[in-house]
Amino acid sequence: MSKAQSFYDAHVSTLHKATEAVRSREFWTPYPEVPSGRIYGESANAEGQSAFKDRLDKSFELEMPALEGEVGEEVSPYGFELGIRYGRANADALIGRMQASLKAWRDAGPDARAGICLEILDRLNKRSFEIGYATMHTTGQGFAMAFQAGGPHAQDRGLEAVALAWEEMKRIPCSAGWVKPQGKNPALAQEKQYTVVPQGISLVVACSTFPTWNTYPGLFASLVTGNPVIVKPHPGSVLPVAITVEVAQAVLREAGFDPCLVSMVADTEAEPATKKLAQHPAIKLIDFTGSSTFGAWLENFCSNAQVFTEKAGVNTLIIDSVKSLKAVTRNLAFSLSLYSGQMCTTPQNIYIPRSGIDTDEGHLSFDQVASALADAITGFLGKPGVAVNVLGALQNAATLERIEACSELGRVVLASEKVDHPDFPNARMCTPLLVSVDAADKAVYSQERFGPISFLIATDSTDHSIELAREVIAEKGAITLGVYSTSEAVLDKTHELSLDVKVALSCNLAGGVFVNQSAAFSDFHATGGNPAANACLTDSSFVSRRFVVVQNRHDVTPPGGE
Amino acid sequence: MSKAQSFYDAHVSTLHKATEAVRSREFWTPYPEVPSGRIYGESANAEGQSAFKDRLDKSFELEMPALEGEVGEEVSPYGFELGIRYGRANADALIGRMQASLKAWRDAGPDARAGICLEILDRLNKRSFEIGYATMHTTGQGFAMAFQAGGPHAQDRGLEAVALAWEEMKRIPCSAGWVKPQGKNPALAQEKQYTVVPQGISLVVACSTFPTWNTYPGLFASLVTGNPVIVKPHPGSVLPVAITVEVAQAVLREAGFDPCLVSMVADTEAEPATKKLAQHPAIKLIDFTGSSTFGAWLENFCSNAQVFTEKAGVNTLIIDSVKSLKAVTRNLAFSLSLYSGQMCTTPQNIYIPRSGIDTDEGHLSFDQVASALADAITGFLGKPGVAVNVLGALQNAATLERIEACSELGRVVLASEKVDHPDFPNARMCTPLLVSVDAADKAVYSQERFGPISFLIATDSTDHSIELAREVIAEKGAITLGVYSTSEAVLDKTHELSLDVKVALSCNLAGGVFVNQSAAFSDFHATGGNPAANACLTDSSFVSRRFVVVQNRHDVTPPGGE
Repeated sequence: MSKAQSFYDAHVSTLHKATEAVRSREFWTPYPEVPSGRIYGESANAEGQSAFKDRLDKSFELEMPALEGEVGEEVSPYGFELGIRYGRANADALIGRMQASLKAWRDAGPDARAGICLEILDRLNKRSFEIGYATMHTTGQGFAMAFQAGGPHAQDRGLEAVALAWEEMKRIPCSAGWVKPQGKNPALAQEKQYTVVPQGISLVVACSTFPTWNTYPGLFASLVTGNPVIVKPHPGSVLPVAITVEVAQAVLREAGFDPCLVSMVADTEAEPATKKLAQHPAIKLIDFTGSSTFGAWLENFCSNAQVFTEKAGVNTLIIDSVKSLKAVTRNLAFSLSLYSGQMCTTPQNIYIPRSGIDTDEGHLSFDQVASALADAITGFLGKPGVAVNVLGALQNAATLERIEACSELGRVVLASEKVDHPDFPNARMCTPLLVSVDAADKAVYSQERFGPISFLIATDSTDHSIELAREVIAEKGAITLGVYSTSEAVLDKTHELSLDVKVALSCNLAGGVFVNQSAAFSDFHATGGNPAANACLTDSSFVSRRFVVVQNRHDVTPPGGE
Repeated sequence: MSKAQSFYDAHVSTLHKATEAVRSREFWTPYPEVPSGRIYGESANAEGQSAFKDRLDKSFELEMPALEGEVGEEVSPYGFELGIRYGRANADALIGRMQASLKAWRDAGPDARAGICLEILDRLNKRSFEIGYATMHTTGQGFAMAFQAGGPHAQDRGLEAVALAWEEMKRIPCSAGWVKPQGKNPALAQEKQYTVVPQGISLVVACSTFPTWNTYPGLFASLVTGNPVIVKPHPGSVLPVAITVEVAQAVLREAGFDPCLVSMVADTEAEPATKKLAQHPAIKLIDFTGSSTFGAWLENFCSNAQVFTEKAGVNTLIIDSVKSLKAVTRNLAFSLSLYSGQMCTTPQNIYIPRSGIDTDEGHLSFDQVASALADAITGFLGKPGVAVNVLGALQNAATLERIEACSELGRVVLASEKVDHPDFPNARMCTPLLVSVDAADKAVYSQERFGPISFLIATDSTDHSIELAREVIAEKGAITLGVYSTSEAVLDKTHELSLDVKVALSCNLAGGVFVNQSAAFSDFHATGGNPAANACLTDSSFVSRRFVVVQNRHDVTPPGGE
């Protein structure tokens, strides 16, 4: 039995459960999200941390042809240089090698490729602690989040893509008998064979803040459909990608395929590699998470490829009325604090009527609501250990400057303050900034201000809030929209808004689920229908565009014929 | 019960059979292809012809806002002016009206929309004779073909698109209960709702030669997924589109929807409307069949929309050896004659080793093979009635000039000769041209020469034929590839070629199925993987890109919770 077949056999029940979960969209995961020794092994944390430390100040070895020196400029947002150097392959040599290896990967077929992808994901899962530390010290996420978002949650998204794409490929029959009656004459009869054929080489451009979570969908969707994949990590967040590629290469090698079917091309801030790679005629698929400017460039100037982008947007909350002010502000305090607002799903614009809102504590003025939210954040982050672990560090120093600049744009409701990390004195950490502005200050709030920056926007009414949200989202896009209201009519109007501007809606979240969380198998992440993203992770069109079907037909004698 | 629901109920079994056929890819159709009175009613032909004649020299009434005069310049390739005038709506007014009507169509949901689409198709089927005559006198197709390709076969393709898209939408559950265990704490629980939301307004740009067959997939795929559709017919082939829109508008009106959800924008050769429409920001989907130049323009300059193109290509035959020379040449004589080579699937390049091929009549030289093919065409077209009915007329006068020009490009093996039609003395008709060239004359045969023009290309060997086919198809694309060989090794190599350049392959067709025929529910028409088309009609990605999923989630008390 081939290695790929044995991987498939080992994981086929996971694959089936994943396809069922994608269809039911109920909760399911094979990768536990709790960084617990009881689940991952008592020594897993220590081993993961030590594996991470062993990576520092060394060359990271990956299989690649035509090495042309090394690059490496990662600095932990917690304040130290990683000192890891990554080999840089000659791009043309790498693409040539991948093209030569494509055929064997294509001919392996959907089951073998799914088996290998699932084995890669399984091994990544076992290395979740190492990946967690690598994610923490590149993205700045607190460890618990880095473990989850960099490890099991990213693996979920990868598995979701494998399951969707595998199901999509299996919907094409391998063959069909076609018999067309011809009245009294013998029927016309053909045998037809259908082959899933990958588009070509796939380029996945990773981002600095979620180098695995935002990368695995494209990576695994392309790989399982037969496309060799080049991952181009952000120069600031290479390590989680490099570990992923190392694991993928090991599994491919064991199964008798060219490990370079999954490759990494590292670059530097000074000499970015993406544009040239993206326009290479052999590149047929591009997945990108990052800035709107670069995303739009890829969409407009890479006609060689199908381009899937997730870009910036202006995530939005509409607060009309609340059943429990405490529960709501507690929920939002977490949402706004988590990873210092550096999630593509963190709310930025919070629309509140200037006349205030009805709450279980009576009618509160705009300022009272603003204060309640500010107090909830302060209270939440004041608990021991919370600030350090929930906020994490700022991935990019430019975010600090942005916070400062945004403090000038309105009335500061909650100032951003420096936070000290007990273990990392140089960590780049601060608390969220809340600024209140008037609805008229549209220039202020109608663009993305990346980082822990939110605007409380005083509007004429909830209808006005909805109208402003509609305008800003239609123009700039959004990945999340949240609403708080005790009125069915307002919830209905917000639902209409969400359909009109094509953004996922969360209503009255006041417990342990947060607007910035997106659960694999259940939540469609981005819709692909507004300017924040031209594709959804992960729906049918995200996977089906990665392959074509080539048929082969020939005549046969009709049934009953001579 | 709503009208839409009653349409759905009336047609749901057809819908289910269509989805099954798409999965099994076995032969199936609900629309009989034989233009027979026993099937369509004894008076159907006469009524259809009379309905067609009643259209001539009149204004064709369609519902549209803001009429701005009329256009109409159709001339039958059989030699008379149709004299039909079509109203021209103000594009902005039309788009505004469609945007206003979109919401009701979106909110109707997949079943209601599918019911309406199936009713439209059913009524189109009942008008197949009228559409057949309209198709004949715009495209030039002989009546039997015009009936089939313009009527039932086009309806098949429309139904295929509806079935695929409906199935794709129904794979998204309307709602899900999501319950995430939290160890000893109460589970997190949410109710989620998922809504299929159309991309926006869809523009379908029809071609002159197959105004319904190439239009229905995009039209119905967009419509059933909730997108209002503007069809922009070719100025030379408006009538079959106008009848289609008329039928669609009637069904929409009866079901209580705005008939303008399906609209037509007619234009003229002198003042084409497509570019401006295609770049309108409200247009989110574009389907196009036509020239490579314009297709590439749409692909590159309409970033407002998802663009599905079928363009020019160089369809290819590789002849290595044949089991029955008579059967093969008879099959090819039909393929090359049918509609005078004006199908997007007609073979143009026929590669034959210059040393000849093995046949059941012994080894034949290149020239002998060429003569056998020429003789088969002459013999076939010499039978009474065949030439007139199979060849049809040339849609465009430019094709005549192209035939003449191509006669100079090599040695004429079979000259194109004028054909007289007994009923239409001014019909633009001629027999196919066969020109033999050497493999070295690549400039001659490495571009599409639209019309009844084929090149017999003398190569060093079948391996050389395969290599040349690979180069030309990789660069220019193809929709069909055929091979004739008695050698398994050659068939294997050609199969590899078909996978590498992503083109559908037909092997040894020597009976009643022809390389230029593409059967709905079974054959994938174009792959979307080579330059001849960036999309396939009809696969999963052809339909799933036309809608997004918008979710709405809220907390609920967990099962067993208080």
